[in-house]
Amino acid sequence: MLAEYTEVAGETTRTFLSAPTRAVHQYLREWMERTGMSVFVDVAGNLRGRYDSENPVARRLYIGSHIDTVPRAGAFDGVLGVVLAIALIENLEGRKLPFHIEAVAFSEEEGVRFRVPFIGSRAMIGDIGDDLLATRDPDGISVREAIQAFGLDPSRIGEAQADENALGYFEIHIEQGPVLEALNLPLAVVDSILGQSRAGVTFEGRASHAGTTPMHLRRDALAGAAEWIAAVEREAQNISGLVATVGSLAVQPGAANVIPEHARASLDVRHASDLVRRQSVERLLGCAGQIAARRNLAASMEHHLDQPCVALDDALVRMVEHAVETSGHVVHRMSSGAGHDAMIMQRRMPAAMLFLRNPGGISHNPDETVLPEDVAAALRAGASLLRGLENSHG
Amino acid sequence: MLAEYTEVAGETTRTFLSAPTRAVHQYLREWMERTGMSVFVDVAGNLRGRYDSENPVARRLYIGSHIDTVPRAGAFDGVLGVVLAIALIENLEGRKLPFHIEAVAFSEEEGVRFRVPFIGSRAMIGDIGDDLLATRDPDGISVREAIQAFGLDPSRIGEAQADENALGYFEIHIEQGPVLEALNLPLAVVDSILGQSRAGVTFEGRASHAGTTPMHLRRDALAGAAEWIAAVEREAQNISGLVATVGSLAVQPGAANVIPEHARASLDVRHASDLVRRQSVERLLGCAGQIAARRNLAASMEHHLDQPCVALDDALVRMVEHAVETSGHVVHRMSSGAGHDAMIMQRRMPAAMLFLRNPGGISHNPDETVLPEDVAAALRAGASLLRGLENSHG
Repeated sequence: MLAEYTEVAGETTRTFLSAPTRAVHQYLREWMERTGMSVFVDVAGNLRGRYDSENPVARRLYIGSHIDTVPRAGAFDGVLGVVLAIALIENLEGRKLPFHIEAVAFSEEEGVRFRVPFIGSRAMIGDIGDDLLATRDPDGISVREAIQAFGLDPSRIGEAQADENALGYFEIHIEQGPVLEALNLPLAVVDSILGQSRAGVTFEGRASHAGTTPMHLRRDALAGAAEWIAAVEREAQNISGLVATVGSLAVQPGAANVIPEHARASLDVRHASDLVRRQSVERLLGCAGQIAARRNLAASMEHHLDQPCVALDDALVRMVEHAVETSGHVVHRMSSGAGHDAMIMQRRMPAAMLFLRNPGGISHNPDETVLPEDVAAALRAGASLLRGLENSHG
Repeated sequence: MLAEYTEVAGETTRTFLSAPTRAVHQYLREWMERTGMSVFVDVAGNLRGRYDSENPVARRLYIGSHIDTVPRAGAFDGVLGVVLAIALIENLEGRKLPFHIEAVAFSEEEGVRFRVPFIGSRAMIGDIGDDLLATRDPDGISVREAIQAFGLDPSRIGEAQADENALGYFEIHIEQGPVLEALNLPLAVVDSILGQSRAGVTFEGRASHAGTTPMHLRRDALAGAAEWIAAVEREAQNISGLVATVGSLAVQPGAANVIPEHARASLDVRHASDLVRRQSVERLLGCAGQIAARRNLAASMEHHLDQPCVALDDALVRMVEHAVETSGHVVHRMSSGAGHDAMIMQRRMPAAMLFLRNPGGISHNPDETVLPEDVAAALRAGASLLRGLENSHG
């Protein structure tokens, strides 16, 4: 249903503050209001519905996820977590809790429009600077102008911030991976977001004729890159919990009868331990240098990203585990290999996440799906978490 | 000097029957006529200069190479052999031989304009059919129209044919490879043109998230392709005389954080034995299938080309060897990994080739060069060949 609100007919593409965002806001706002929430759009375009306690000085629990999408997206990445946040409050049937709840639909998480992710959640922790406001999309429109065009006042961006003493942040999201399906489990409790390195490696040899250059006189950049790609895979297979990926490889000149002169590869490495991850990256870049030297190639390396692992809040994670167990499911704890708003919110308040099984591990794709019984399981676990918080913060 | 006759200012690009061809013809025609030849342009645009024997029924020796170029070419590929053919006749200083000589500047060898190589030499062996005449260049001009636009009559293409009982064809060409440089030799005698296979291999896996997909649940098309590229290199290193190249590799979707779904690789394999070459190709395609099966990938293979090895004429090759020896140089016999007009001419008459050292192995590139002393060595060997033929056909 919500997947029909799109910039591009026939698919689901909904970037930060694009026109279909208003339709999604309208739909969610009406539902939130029927459920008894007071609703507002903050200065960053986040839609927020407050379901307050009868105790005016109670602390606030934030529950949410994002409503923007990648191009040609599926129907569940992000928005499912918003829908489930509202459904959890609806299921209270008007019963007030000893803490406030706020359902949040973050305006931006994917980083598509401005190539900067997490704009929605960063606004809620006060992390939007002038640099970010001046960043421009491919049409030359800045974040500041996009906020104005949506009818909001970017000079008041600081007002979007969440409470300082919040009770916590809880997010339900599809796994975007195949682990739960392989384990035949509906739910996982997320205790951390993997740290991530990105780097680039370029091998440089000499273009020469594929017919006239004997093997021992070649300086083949692609042969060097292929040897290194095998080493990347081996490294990740040998180190528990490590994932390492060469996702792009550009070969020049790229003619069938010319020995490749340049091969430029990307490297993406993630692990729950920053030390393990950084050591692996250094080992892999060193390995590229050794391969190049042995093959009489040049190798150049660039570090693009070194994002530390984010541990979610241990106490809240354990409460989510308990909620999963209470609702009748096996507890599986895991790290998230993808970034989520929870890792931003954790900088201001205790945060935890619940993953739903993602059939086929297919995400960022129209074939993305979830099982209805897993959605029901997530709702039961969420309700159980609210009861647990009620008991401990009563 | 001749490299300045180009379609594109600042570089040397001279395709079949393009405007600068006329300037090259004019330059070469004047030189040929000064040398005592009778000159004509045949219906395929080949410039031909006849230096006839006093014996009207003598057989004819053809000496030549091509004057077209690849885009952004060097100054020597092809045209050097034409210049040396004329120089060999000039060095006779008017002395007549017991056989006719014809210097030939083939109009087309590289296959750039119509994606069909050897149009000039194919015309001289009567191998231009209606299909070829109807082939169109990227501007929609057919071979037939190009010949007409150059002022020639394509309906008379059959008249371009060389004599049936010709004495032979001799071609001097740069090596376009690094072998003679590595051996520190100026010249090589070419006894065959390697057979060549071209194929394509596509690995297909599943695109998934680089952060959320554990190594053991991946179906990474690029990792499979990399393993296969290493196997291609190993195969060629293990079989004497084999060259095998993966020159292009296209990876989709090609994002740093997405596991590759498709990887499409080219394969170019050459060897002097057609049996060895075909067995290697089959082994490599089988290997791709095994790698794919083990990695839960799909692999599809396409055969694009299976061009047999062409043996040049053994007796004429031995005469060229003797000429090289007589002129004071070490004899090195080799196969050509690249195609040449000699392999076309061999279908009608005995053919042989002489290679010149190619510093750095650099060809099809403005940095292509030759050493003046190697040019002098080639001229001495060529003169020695003419003397040898004179003695044996006197």
